[in-house]
Amino acid sequence: MAKPPPRLFVESPLVTGETVALEKGQTHYLKNVLRLEVGATVALFNGRDGEWHGAFGISGNAGSVVAETLQRTQSEAAGPGLMFAPIKKGPMEIMVQKATELGVARLNPVITDFTDVVRFNRARLRATAVEAAEQCDRLSVPEIEDPLSLSERLENWPANTRLLLAAEAGTAMPIFEALAEIKAAGTGSDWVLAVGPVGGFSPAEHEMLRELPYAVPVGLGPRLLKAETAAIAALSCWQSILGDWDNRPIDRNAG
Amino acid sequence: MAKPPPRLFVESPLVTGETVALEKGQTHYLKNVLRLEVGATVALFNGRDGEWHGAFGISGNAGSVVAETLQRTQSEAAGPGLMFAPIKKGPMEIMVQKATELGVARLNPVITDFTDVVRFNRARLRATAVEAAEQCDRLSVPEIEDPLSLSERLENWPANTRLLLAAEAGTAMPIFEALAEIKAAGTGSDWVLAVGPVGGFSPAEHEMLRELPYAVPVGLGPRLLKAETAAIAALSCWQSILGDWDNRPIDRNAG
Repeated sequence: MAKPPPRLFVESPLVTGETVALEKGQTHYLKNVLRLEVGATVALFNGRDGEWHGAFGISGNAGSVVAETLQRTQSEAAGPGLMFAPIKKGPMEIMVQKATELGVARLNPVITDFTDVVRFNRARLRATAVEAAEQCDRLSVPEIEDPLSLSERLENWPANTRLLLAAEAGTAMPIFEALAEIKAAGTGSDWVLAVGPVGGFSPAEHEMLRELPYAVPVGLGPRLLKAETAAIAALSCWQSILGDWDNRPIDRNAG
Repeated sequence: MAKPPPRLFVESPLVTGETVALEKGQTHYLKNVLRLEVGATVALFNGRDGEWHGAFGISGNAGSVVAETLQRTQSEAAGPGLMFAPIKKGPMEIMVQKATELGVARLNPVITDFTDVVRFNRARLRATAVEAAEQCDRLSVPEIEDPLSLSERLENWPANTRLLLAAEAGTAMPIFEALAEIKAAGTGSDWVLAVGPVGGFSPAEHEMLRELPYAVPVGLGPRLLKAETAAIAALSCWQSILGDWDNRPIDRNAG
């Protein structure tokens, strides 16, 4: 079994014959970490043009790949968004990495009453998301938005979008029952999953969120989950019931 | 709203009037980190006798708690076990922490063909599990077993126990459909979830596992999940459908 080629996210358009200049870090990775030979196959994706194979080239310190063949067309089910309050660096990176693997479409940080982490390093989290997308075979990288206050975010709520609220308190339908009912009803809409910060949403926020006409408060069981655990668990349940988990991974060793 | 009391796992029996000696680290945490006053309430659990409240005391450097009132009886739904190959320290700790929050009953490390991490620091992972159990309101700490080879583990397979196999390749029913069918059939059994190491189970292992009469191979969608992500996702789905997610968290601010 041949090892699948290294997979890189690039910003450039991908069309036959296009020479894609690599970033310094990408060149270093291919040349010095993987010790890739000139001419070796590299897989590229940019979130728009599908996945391409091309040949690695290097000139001085500048690496490039010439796009040669389209391997997969850009057709991916849209996952849900994830609305969350910034948390500490370690758990924040875990949340972004796992949410990317689990097919999140975009990440919406919101500042809530109990959010005590002010620093939100968007560039760093973007790098985490790119790396996770490269490794998990996604054709896109989730968008990471700038933080908004919770009320700003709700004022700009997108049309035809429902909110699956991980409700830490109060009555809530178990997530499985709620999602199975929604699946059976078969009404299409976009989704955003929401988890509170450490310490949860404040009682006022919690009540306000629950009352939104597009909100579905759901329960994630009797244990107190950390914010990132709640996000990963809710995303897993959503994907398994409403998402694309009827599909299997691509067999990279076939053909 | 009063803050809930700190929650500690202890090994001692818990009965009315019992003085429970705390470990050095626990005493340090209560006295120097939380700056708890003598007489303040501490919550204790030991995995057998429910959760107790008691009064913090200190004599020299030795902290103790006198158990006073039973708050919750020891009644917890048994979660599934998790069989996994040891992975690197960071992801390994994430897996143990999140699996504990998600109610895993026991952790069974197995050495597989593609397991390239030989070091399995059971004591350290036990500490991670204890801390997660304290924080997530569990009444028990999952058992962490010593690593066995995959074949040893299967030779000693427990009775009436089914294996939910996160199948990276080959045909597999989507996890939601498989679990919903099992729920509808209503046949009781214990469960162990299994995820492969980085690089997956070897083709021979994969085939062998799929053929086990008690195995249910399931799919977790089209993306390649890291080992710890697959474990967290499978556990979330299992708990949401076959587990105890009909229950809500205890309201610690009530009463």
